[in-house]
Amino acid sequence: MKILLIGAGGTIGSAVDKELSQRHEVIRIGRSSGDFQVDISDSASIRKLFEQTGKFDALVCAAGNVTFAPLGEMTEDSFALGLKDKLMGQVNLLLIGREFANDGASFTFTTGVLSHDPIRSGASAALVNGALDSFVRAAAIELPRGLRVNSISPTVLVEAMGSYAPYFRGYKPVPAADVALAYAKSVEGLQTGQTFHVG
Amino acid sequence: MKILLIGAGGTIGSAVDKELSQRHEVIRIGRSSGDFQVDISDSASIRKLFEQTGKFDALVCAAGNVTFAPLGEMTEDSFALGLKDKLMGQVNLLLIGREFANDGASFTFTTGVLSHDPIRSGASAALVNGALDSFVRAAAIELPRGLRVNSISPTVLVEAMGSYAPYFRGYKPVPAADVALAYAKSVEGLQTGQTFHVG
Ligand SMILES: NC(=O)c1ccc[n+]([C@@H]2O[C@H](COP(=O)([O-])OP(=O)(O)OC[C@H]3O[C@@H](n4cnc5c(N)ncnc54)[C@H](OP(=O)(O)O)[C@@H]3O)[C@@H](O)[C@H]2O)c1
Ligand SMILES: NC(=O)c1ccc[n+]([C@@H]2O[C@H](COP(=O)([O-])OP(=O)(O)OC[C@H]3O[C@@H](n4cnc5c(N)ncnc54)[C@H](OP(=O)(O)O)[C@@H]3O)[C@@H](O)[C@H]2O)c1
Repeated sequence: MKILLIGAGGTIGSAVDKELSQRHEVIRIGRSSGDFQVDISDSASIRKLFEQTGKFDALVCAAGNVTFAPLGEMTEDSFALGLKDKLMGQVNLLLIGREFANDGASFTFTTGVLSHDPIRSGASAALVNGALDSFVRAAAIELPRGLRVNSISPTVLVEAMGSYAPYFRGYKPVPAADVALAYAKSVEGLQTGQTFHVG
Repeated sequence: MKILLIGAGGTIGSAVDKELSQRHEVIRIGRSSGDFQVDISDSASIRKLFEQTGKFDALVCAAGNVTFAPLGEMTEDSFALGLKDKLMGQVNLLLIGREFANDGASFTFTTGVLSHDPIRSGASAALVNGALDSFVRAAAIELPRGLRVNSISPTVLVEAMGSYAPYFRGYKPVPAADVALAYAKSVEGLQTGQTFHVG
């Protein structure tokens, strides 16, 4: 399979790269690193990416930014990044990417545990993750040509605890390699409209 | 209690009005109908509303628009209404409304079954409903002064089947009066961070 991996240089992306590149052709994409560059918050940049990569069999997005801030300090503007980047960025990868997807291709998006197991400062992350998990369930039933879409919802990663530990006290972190397996299940399996929870 | 009811003239809102006005002072708010007017998609309009109504003990929103369209015809723009109106409209009712909320006041928002039981053309509705149900869960744990927030997630209403039936074949509709009970549970009970599913 030809797999487009957005966020290939990141904590999750590099583990997904290691898992999938054993068996597949992985095209590594980042905002500034990788074989190709994209800013998922910009739909023109997404279209340009697909024009460069051409057709594909699977797209994995392990990228997406949101604002973390105490709810007491948040205004409407604090939610704009999450809506434009992690949420509509991934939705647009499907809306635009489907034109470039081979029959039976899959889309695998990244959400996270905060939708249902919230932390302080995580209101925008929760909103975006919940939005995507529900979008995936709804979009899957309308996709033509055997196209599929799933989301992976990991808890905090062992490899991220260096910086995230103070925000995730009491959460049992999961190794990136275990999270990567869920991406393989989505890409190499046949399920669609699912959220795979890891951790 | 002094209860602000946004969407009081609607299918759900009028049933909530009937249930809550038996025991409370209900201020009826609509886009063009009611005692006061607001456009929830406009944060300046929301602020103006609260300046007119003054302090309150409960806010119920039974309003919110999204675009219904086949996924194959949807672009990024098709999601803008849902993000601005039903999603950020209700988020902004909390972000702005908390300044006007008495200690212990509650916010009750409206989502819907499409987040987890999708229909054709419902991708934006699913996304928005899932976003709000997760936002409510996360925001609740950070609210000060005993403020609470819940969402009500009804299936399709008996009273809406006149126009919605073709989209909801096989769904068992629920009477508006039963849906209204969930709003009473949220407003008059003590739970927070919950989504009450009805139907
Ligand atoms: N880390 C965790 O514990 C954890 C747990 C649950 C969920 N998640 C979610 O998983 C996603 C990735 O997290 P991570 O920790 O692996 O991130 P990370 O280590 O910071 O890596 C992010 C990757 O995404 C790329 N990227 C960032 N913004 C981009 C944009 N706007 N357009 C395109 N590419 C962009 C970066 O490119 P460059 O390499 O060029 O900078 C990088 O490759 C996030 O949405 C996060 O919320 C993470
Ligand atoms: N009906 C169902 O079966 C059902 C099931 C599940 C979920 N829901 C959800 O419940 C919510 C209400 O549905 P409904 O069927 O009761 O709606 P409805 O009968 O169309 O009534 C909508 C009400 O909201 C007001 N409104 C509309 N847009 C507004 C805006 N931008 N700002 C402020 N007020 C606005 C309207 O004001 P005016 O009276 O002035 O026009 C009206 O009072 C929607 O989000 C819908 O998705 C409905």
